[in-house]
Formats: sequence, structure tokens, C-alpha cells
Amino acid sequence: MYVPDQPSTGRRLVVAFAMTSDALRDSLFLPDTMKRISAVADLASDTVLMEFDSPAARDVLSRIDVLITGWGCPRISATVLDAAPRLRLIAHAAGTVKAHVDREAWARGVVVTTAALANARPVAEFTLAALLLAGKNALPAASQFRTGGWQAARAAVPAEAGNYGTTVGIIGASKIGRLLLELLRPFSFRVLLADPTVTAEQAGDLGAELVALPELMARSRIVSLHAPILPSTIGMIGRSELAAMPDGGTFINTARGVLVDSQALREEVASGRINAVLDVTTPEPLPDDDLLLTLPNVTVTPHIAGSVGNELPAMAELAATEVERLAAGVPFGYPVSLAELDSMA
Amino acid sequence: MYVPDQPSTGRRLVVAFAMTSDALRDSLFLPDTMKRISAVADLASDTVLMEFDSPAARDVLSRIDVLITGWGCPRISATVLDAAPRLRLIAHAAGTVKAHVDREAWARGVVVTTAALANARPVAEFTLAALLLAGKNALPAASQFRTGGWQAARAAVPAEAGNYGTTVGIIGASKIGRLLLELLRPFSFRVLLADPTVTAEQAGDLGAELVALPELMARSRIVSLHAPILPSTIGMIGRSELAAMPDGGTFINTARGVLVDSQALREEVASGRINAVLDVTTPEPLPDDDLLLTLPNVTVTPHIAGSVGNELPAMAELAATEVERLAAGVPFGYPVSLAELDSMA
Repeated sequence: MYVPDQPSTGRRLVVAFAMTSDALRDSLFLPDTMKRISAVADLASDTVLMEFDSPAARDVLSRIDVLITGWGCPRISATVLDAAPRLRLIAHAAGTVKAHVDREAWARGVVVTTAALANARPVAEFTLAALLLAGKNALPAASQFRTGGWQAARAAVPAEAGNYGTTVGIIGASKIGRLLLELLRPFSFRVLLADPTVTAEQAGDLGAELVALPELMARSRIVSLHAPILPSTIGMIGRSELAAMPDGGTFINTARGVLVDSQALREEVASGRINAVLDVTTPEPLPDDDLLLTLPNVTVTPHIAGSVGNELPAMAELAATEVERLAAGVPFGYPVSLAELDSMA
Repeated sequence: MYVPDQPSTGRRLVVAFAMTSDALRDSLFLPDTMKRISAVADLASDTVLMEFDSPAARDVLSRIDVLITGWGCPRISATVLDAAPRLRLIAHAAGTVKAHVDREAWARGVVVTTAALANARPVAEFTLAALLLAGKNALPAASQFRTGGWQAARAAVPAEAGNYGTTVGIIGASKIGRLLLELLRPFSFRVLLADPTVTAEQAGDLGAELVALPELMARSRIVSLHAPILPSTIGMIGRSELAAMPDGGTFINTARGVLVDSQALREEVASGRINAVLDVTTPEPLPDDDLLLTLPNVTVTPHIAGSVGNELPAMAELAATEVERLAAGVPFGYPVSLAELDSMA
């Protein structure tokens, strides 16, 4: 991990925020967190930057040492970096920095930190819940109850349902995948893991049996996807992978829609052969009349597995801690290296 | 706990089953479990007893030392006990024995054991999942997604949602309540417990703050019910208890419908003020056109939180172990005392 030594300058830091709206900043950065930042830095502006092109934005950029970013931050290009000659830290109060930070930032020695760890936890928790309910076919049963009544609801829970010894397949020992593996330990699942970067011994330490993806798809009654977006992972769950899943199985996607062949998934779930819990889709948002929203065996949530509500401030707290570390001249907690950038979701 | 000493008789035990159907026995008692029973006992009959009145049933009863019971076992009255003079053990392969075993069994020294512990675990796991999703309002969001599209789905997740520091209220430190409290430990909830039989110190040891029921209802964004059925608990969640819950809160019932004022619950959820996850209801089964099945903020499952599918054999394994204990003359694992009978769900 890239942990630069950041000597204190002896001068107070100047900080600005860049994200979708002031409202988002306020829901992320609670008064206590703002107090922590104000203790070590001055705010360059009372409002967040929603663009980097106006004279006002350029003026802010010219003065800052730190840019705290959040969802919807405009792209930080070489031109933006030119306008911010004093910038030393981009502290992102969310997960991936791939979409908004240009590689040029690393070339110029600007440190980029992530709050991915704080965002990983809610995703892992949501996935655990989806898994436990999938084991009992509880969500299809609830859907059937609405439309077909008690008998249809009971019929949605087959003899092979249940969470006792059920085989669960985790794709990807990412931050989220590892947290999920940890959360799965108190339960009675048999856990398989597919990840080309992990050894059998490491998988064993994570409580899982390492298998290749085709074997994972064929053996798991529940499959949960936690892979990063890479050229090699886009569309990695295709027609043959889904077809390999056992009848009545459940496919859970809380990662990214683009990892899955959307048409193949639609055909497989529309047949009723397998169930799905989808927090992410292609396209996203789904059109209101999308097929996926009409199927009793598919539960679609609106990309909420990650931080929502009171989970957001944990990401802001991580970002504030990075600002404190810069001010104190101690190593950063979660700097992103260029190598990590490439494997980020 | 009542742990009688059961000296071995030196003679092979004779065992029969009583429950709904042979199919239920076969789904509970897998070949390995049947082998364990056959190793220490002879079967009085190849089929289960579904009634105790026919000459064939009377003949079976006259010969057995052990009756292994399951869901739908007819009531074991004094008359049935008269017909089974050698009976020493009723090993129930499910939770409560209140509905089918007469107090007379205890009077005659017949030991009654329960597999409630094996059935408690799936209920606690289901409830954990319901809680984690309730924290994010995920199930109402999924319902709204179906009917109102992305915007309505996102709007179903308010700023106060999330599982970070959210207050959760557990009613009843029952077997299930205690297992749930244990499962809640790795998460970031603030946990309240209401139970008149528990001290503040005991609650603290369980990871919870002991409060009275009215305070629990008022402070908890999520409330989960795990109380036994007693004269004092029937209807314990009434109009004023539900009205005390914060707007947008979620009430979870995996215990019994009769603990809740059904009309008050219907009115409170129909207003949309609070959400609910109901695995049990009054009446049960719900009529196909019941109001509860039409509400986007209510998820109803068909009484599946307890053991289903591959979870059933764990209860049978517990019952088989009790038969082995009788044969070996060692103390029973989960005998039910008369005092426990009275506080059973």
C-alpha cells in the first residue's frame, strides 16, 4: 500500500468540498465531523463545488490544499489540477475514485484517499440479509403471497430451501466480499469463493473453499457477486454461467450491473428457473416498465445496498480523518495507489 | 432444569412417530438420523400415527417406550397415555409442546423433550435479515419500485434510514430473542430489550439496554417481537404501543399473530405511518384478499421463519439424540419442565 509521509507545513490547511449538492454534504458531514475538519483547516467556501469551470470555482481551486469529494463530483482533469497548484489531498467520502479522479493526480503527487471501507460494510450487511432470505425463498414467497395467496406462497418454498448447510458462492474477495465472508461465519452455510487473485489457503483462511467460477455457479444454490469492474470482469456473468446455476437458486448482485449479461439474466429469471435480488442493474435506473420489475421471483432495490441515511456519515468521518492525518503529518489511512485504481469497482 | 436420571433397561427400546404425515417424517428424519434411531431402538410401525383412536394405533401405543412427535401430532391426552403404559419419553421434533402434550404426561413421569433450540435458530436468522433490510427500508423500496418506478423507490428510503447506530427494540429474551441478540452483536445497532423476567445487568450481558415496553416502542426505529404466548402477552402489542413507534419505523413479528392487536396493526400500517414484516398473522393463513397483502409497506411471508427445507432435519437430529440418551441412560438434553411448559410460545 502507498503510504506517503506528509510533513506538516506549519500553516493551516484550506479545504473545499465537491459533490452533487450542499444537501448531500450536510447529510454526510454532520456537525461533529465538520468541527473536526474546522479544527485543522479553513473552509475555502461555504458551498460545495458542483463544477470546476466558473471563475468562482477557479478561485476556490487556487487556494485549496485539500478537496473533499463525494458522489457526483465533476471529473478532476489535468486542467482542474492546473487550477489547483497547492492541492495535496483528494479525500473521497465514498467508494470508488475511478470515475472522477484522473490518473494525472497521481503523476503530480496528489494523494487520493477513499472511504470505500466505510461503504463496503453496508453492502456486506445488505447482502447477508439478502442471502439469509434467499435461503428460505422468502422474497419470492412474499411476492407470491400478494398475487396468489397462502397456497402459492407456501409453494414458493421448496423442500431444498433453508439455510442449513446450503452452498453459497461468493464471487470476488474484494473489500465487500471479504467483509461478507466474515459476516457469514456464524451461519451454517458451506461457502465457495471464486477469485483469480486468491490462493486456496487464503480462501480457507477466509472460511471458504476456492473454486473456479464455473464450479461455483454449478454448486451454489445462492450466488453473490462482489467483483471489481475490469476489462476482464465486464459481462463475466453470462448465459452459460447463469445456466449452470441449480434450479430454484438465487443470484444476488450488489456490485455493478455491467458485470452481468443483462439479456441473459432477463431470460433466465423470466423463465422462473432462478430467482434474483438485484440492487444494481443494466440500465440503471431501470425504466418504470422494465420486465425485471414485473417478476415475482426477482426483487429489485434502487441501488441502496451501499451507504444510505445514517450510514453516510461513516464515509465522511473517514474522509475527515484523512484531513486530520495530513494536518498532523502522519501517514494516510486509505490512500489509493495507481495499481488499486485499476482494480477498483 | 429438570434432568431426570434414566437408567438403561437393558432391553431395546420401541419407538413410534406421530405427526401430520409420513412425508413430513421423511423430510425431517433423513436416512442418517433414522439409522441412529434404529441403532438403539426398534420401530413399532413403518408409518406415522396420525390419530390415536384406531385399533391399529392403540396396538402401536401399547408397545412403545418412546413417541417421537412432530407438527400436527394429535393431542396426547390421559386416555392416550392410558393406552401407552410403557411410554417413558415424548421426543418432540419441533418447538412448542404446549398444543399436543397434556400436563398429565408430567404427572405420570413421562419425560417430554423439545427441539425448540434447533427451531429457534432459523427464526433468529430470518429476523436478523428482516432487521437489516428494515434499517434501509429496502422491502418497501422494492415494492414501490414495482408500482411507482425508480423515483418512488428512492423516495421510500428516507434520510433517517440506515443501520448505523439505529435503535432496535427486542421484545422478549426468549430462546429466539437471545439468539437474535447474539446475532446482532457484529452490527452497529443500539439494542433495547423489554422483558419483565430479565434484570438490567442480564440485559447488559446480552448486549442490550433494559427498558419498559412503552419506552422500547417509542425509541426503536425497528421493533421485533419474541415473547411467549401467555395470558399476559396475548394482545400485548396494542393500539397505544404501535402508535408510540416513530414515523417510518418497522414492526417485525416472527412470533405469533395473537400477541398483536390485529385491528390496530392493520390501521397503523394501512395509514403508511409504519412498515411491517409479518411472518405470522391473525388470522393465519391470511385470506387471499387480505388488506395486509395489498400494502407496499408490509411484507408478509407464509410462516416460514422457523425451520423449512434443509433446516427441518436439525430438529429431528435433536430428537434422535434424546432417544440415544434414553437408551444410554444419560440425562436428556432439552427436557421440558412443567414451569417451562407454562411460558412456552
